Amino acid sequence: MQRFGQVIGLRPEDAAEYIRLHADVWPGVLAKIEACNMRNYSIFRYKDLLFAYFEYIGDDYEADMAEIAADETTQEWWALCGPMQQPVPERADGEWWHTIEEVFHVD
Amino acid sequence: MQRFGQVIGLRPEDAAEYIRLHADVWPGVLAKIEACNMRNYSIFRYKDLLFAYFEYIGDDYEADMAEIAADETTQEWWALCGPMQQPVPERADGEWWHTIEEVFHVD
Repeated sequence: MQRFGQVIGLRPEDAAEYIRLHADVWPGVLAKIEACNMRNYSIFRYKDLLFAYFEYIGDDYEADMAEIAADETTQEWWALCGPMQQPVPERADGEWWHTIEEVFHVD
Repeated sequence: MQRFGQVIGLRPEDAAEYIRLHADVWPGVLAKIEACNMRNYSIFRYKDLLFAYFEYIGDDYEADMAEIAADETTQEWWALCGPMQQPVPERADGEWWHTIEEVFHVD
């Protein structure tokens, strides 16, 4: 299992709607997340920054992320949520959410 | 089980030393964390911001946190790490790390 921490900006004017949507994420989006080996996935908010934590239990992260990205329902979800987000300037090529460094862990 | 997300600032000039210390946290500090019902505890870094994620499995969070705070080894650890941190202005009375809002979760 591999842990991930990620950040992305949240446009302040869209915060309320983003939170409303994420209180009731579409079943098809959740099903794809599970099928693609993401577990224990949480998103937290600090001001205009979203922080995601999840655990990846598969053995081909790139392929699983590509499968999520190719999913039609997920694409519709992203079309709704994406404009509410603002990727951080540090993101790497190909990143939307920016993966950040884990500096500590204990089970 | 209750999930927590927390943030605190990291003084840029202390970042390297903070990371070095957290690669090898004292066993007594880790033992107290476990004894006080914190599990799956990770700290991530994004620029000058630290983000913590952990799961609390006890039934009296305030009491467990007070027990950690009363632990002599933990106090020595905090004396070392505390000055490297910069609490965020949004913290509530009694907070060091500031607990933030969970906007999404799926198992």
